[in-house]
Amino acid sequence: MDRLPCAFCEIPRSERDSSLVFEDEVSAAFLDRRPLFPGHSIVIPKQHFETLADLPSDLVGPLFASVQLLSRAVVAAMKAEGSFVAINNRISQSVPHLHVHVVPRRKGDGLKGFFWPRQSYRNEEERESVREAIRRAVLEEKESNR
Amino acid sequence: MDRLPCAFCEIPRSERDSSLVFEDEVSAAFLDRRPLFPGHSIVIPKQHFETLADLPSDLVGPLFASVQLLSRAVVAAMKAEGSFVAINNRISQSVPHLHVHVVPRRKGDGLKGFFWPRQSYRNEEERESVREAIRRAVLEEKESNR
Repeated sequence: MDRLPCAFCEIPRSERDSSLVFEDEVSAAFLDRRPLFPGHSIVIPKQHFETLADLPSDLVGPLFASVQLLSRAVVAAMKAEGSFVAINNRISQSVPHLHVHVVPRRKGDGLKGFFWPRQSYRNEEERESVREAIRRAVLEEKESNR
Repeated sequence: MDRLPCAFCEIPRSERDSSLVFEDEVSAAFLDRRPLFPGHSIVIPKQHFETLADLPSDLVGPLFASVQLLSRAVVAAMKAEGSFVAINNRISQSVPHLHVHVVPRRKGDGLKGFFWPRQSYRNEEERESVREAIRRAVLEEKESNR
């Protein structure tokens, strides 16, 4: 089946790509073109999967080993104090190819909006019903993957 | 050596904890007490590690298998359209025990601030020097882990 070309699939294939910072058998990493801060990198599986939920289980370990490696390397290279690692699945996902943002962080860098506003559960019942729904969904997911 | 008690280490140890949604040998997941949206869950390794960079390589696969499972279960349970998966390492990290946020997302839910403002590299030279610094740091990290 034909599929529209995917911008992220092309990056590791292009020998002349000027943004690659890392590549191994299953993953590649490159500089984001519009970084939050210089050094902001993107880690992808080379094969095309749309979201984290779609990634085959045997690629989860290798992909996140690369994410861990990049989280160390970006902090070291940029002399940063910490990092922000994030995945948008479907909503706010600019390119429909699973990608993990690795962003260098420093105290007072101004990036703090994303965990606002927080809220509370209205009451214990609401929280317990959400908890039960997630516990059930976990069991169903585990059964469907047997 | 004594260490101050860690709030996240205690959660899977407490049989009566009312927020747990998942637990396996290496990881646990529980509801965030101040969720961005109902269903917002936190996935942790049961052993205490401060950041993603500190996680032993043999735990990376198992932990992120649980993150993937929760990303599916939270979306299914909350009838959401997507998810946001994020880790704050050191900066903006409220509890110094590695934890992965899994947040259900919907179109128009208002959570869009975290990738703003973006910037550009001043010029090709700046971008290339950042790229080279990260490539070198990747090689150094790989060598130090041999």
